[in-house]
Amino acid sequence: MPGSTLLLVLDLVGVFAFAVNGALTAVRAVRLDVVGVVTLGVVTAMGGGIARDLLIGRVPPATFSDWRYLAVAAVGGVVVCLAGHRLGRVATSLTVLDAAGLSLFAVTGTSTALAAGLGPVQAVLLGGMTAVGGGTVRDVLVRRTPEVLTGGLYAVPALLAGVVVVLADAFAHPGPVLQGGTAALWAVVAASLCFTVRMVGVAKRVDLPGPRQHPGSAAS
Amino acid sequence: MPGSTLLLVLDLVGVFAFAVNGALTAVRAVRLDVVGVVTLGVVTAMGGGIARDLLIGRVPPATFSDWRYLAVAAVGGVVVCLAGHRLGRVATSLTVLDAAGLSLFAVTGTSTALAAGLGPVQAVLLGGMTAVGGGTVRDVLVRRTPEVLTGGLYAVPALLAGVVVVLADAFAHPGPVLQGGTAALWAVVAASLCFTVRMVGVAKRVDLPGPRQHPGSAAS
Amino acid sequence: MPGSTLLLVLDLVGVFAFAVNGALTAVRAVRLDVVGVVTLGVVTAMGGGIARDLLIGRVPPATFSDWRYLAVAAVGGVVVCLAGHRLGRVATSLTVLDAAGLSLFAVTGTSTALAAGLGPVQAVLLGGMTAVGGGTVRDVLVRRTPEVLTGGLYAVPALLAGVVVVLADAFAHPGPVLQGGTAALWAVVAASLCFTVRMVGVAKRVDLPGPRQHPGSAAS
Repeated sequence: MPGSTLLLVLDLVGVFAFAVNGALTAVRAVRLDVVGVVTLGVVTAMGGGIARDLLIGRVPPATFSDWRYLAVAAVGGVVVCLAGHRLGRVATSLTVLDAAGLSLFAVTGTSTALAAGLGPVQAVLLGGMTAVGGGTVRDVLVRRTPEVLTGGLYAVPALLAGVVVVLADAFAHPGPVLQGGTAALWAVVAASLCFTVRMVGVAKRVDLPGPRQHPGSAAS
Repeated sequence: MPGSTLLLVLDLVGVFAFAVNGALTAVRAVRLDVVGVVTLGVVTAMGGGIARDLLIGRVPPATFSDWRYLAVAAVGGVVVCLAGHRLGRVATSLTVLDAAGLSLFAVTGTSTALAAGLGPVQAVLLGGMTAVGGGTVRDVLVRRTPEVLTGGLYAVPALLAGVVVVLADAFAHPGPVLQGGTAALWAVVAASLCFTVRMVGVAKRVDLPGPRQHPGSAAS
Repeated sequence: MPGSTLLLVLDLVGVFAFAVNGALTAVRAVRLDVVGVVTLGVVTAMGGGIARDLLIGRVPPATFSDWRYLAVAAVGGVVVCLAGHRLGRVATSLTVLDAAGLSLFAVTGTSTALAAGLGPVQAVLLGGMTAVGGGTVRDVLVRRTPEVLTGGLYAVPALLAGVVVVLADAFAHPGPVLQGGTAALWAVVAASLCFTVRMVGVAKRVDLPGPRQHPGSAAS
């Protein structure tokens, strides 16, 4: 981790949210044993961060070599094995957890990419990849069409959060983003923006338009 | 990029061809929103090059950190969103674009691998992976069986082009391949060979038995 | 390779077993041409090791840059092309080959990760990933749900073997694992344990329990 406790805490909360969400989603899509459930929870939670770290040359990936990530992700998967049948009844829990993980990973992913020296556009894209990467790998493994390709306002709020982080990094203060109070404030602003846009999109069933070949709304 | 303007130009033309082809193919296979279409265009265009760069340790991958690749790939995806319904009517456009991207990426991928110090066999294989990797990732994401596994003369012409590049590098001139006029000539020869073999294979339906797609539709 | 002839030999035997198994499995799942069969054999044999090497920063991956891996994997794929219809008749051959590859890769993967300086938990997980990674990629490419998620005692024996290797490394001798006679002995013990547990699991049809279910979360 690049020295920031805030970044670490946000990342770990995102890891837990995504691990629970990923394991729950996987359980509903295919029949899995406990190894499969925990594996998919861990993959969902850590896939995006590992892909990002590979692309910026940070190996072994922090999300893999740091035992706290592994432990938190595994606990999320185990929680689903033990209590998933209860969590699953709360229909909105999946969506809220997913939006939380999306928001946190978009912010930490963009910040990590900036700290690694990537340009602003690449940092926003890597932030988006950190946010949607794990869920995409999970969807491929359980043979669903990845949500990011079809699921309405999913990538867009993550990219928005990344843009806020990049702008805050460029204009709001001299040092690297996410260090000091100002940076923490902007991180919270960016994550809240992503979370709000995502949840509003879900509540209002906002779908992005399809290509012109498919007039009208895209599949929901 | 390893100093060669020719390599860059060939790569960018290949990126555009693959982005348009990938987005068009994806649109036909599943229902996507505009983010999905652009994402799949970019993934198809850049997936093979990024995988190659990861394997040779060139991080961040040039195809990712160089804004020109991203811009050209994104433009290709946007073109499909705006005008895909017209491009799609030209049934052969998909095939021609794909053959062009395949040829260019096989040449630039093999050259890049040679420049990174890999052996000739590895360079040919990495060239082939550069050529077919993006389309394979796209096919996995939209849940088609990857064309390279079933689609007749698809990997073979790419590997042929790589062999020409490796031979030209070994015998035809002293310096690294794709620098100077002789190298440019061989690059054109290799790409033309790949393109010709691929198009002849398509025209003559040189395909081993497999589930066929009906004419004019790429959807399985 | 980290200096150990034993590690190399075990790895190459595992590569061959997985290449034959992977190609045979692929042939049964989808209709492929010869390029597809050899490709899937090579992917199954080398996918796990390449993913492991990327994660520990060993690029180009030894399994890719070392021609012996490529050659052995390709021979495995070609054998299936030429004689797969006979191998396929022996119903247990797939299972035995797979268990052999699983056992060998779990041991060599864990040892390689330890030699790269990773912690014990990470080494066990990377060993497991080396063992199941190639087959998982193959399953994704031919659109099967990966065996590791659903297939009974599959990941567990691989992780058990990794634990034995890590314990042997920590307690049984001072030097790095898999060098010298003691290390070789423990490698054989670990691989035998994995193989035995896997085969007993298959013979007795041992399935791990699923997550706690409730009506309505049933798989589709």
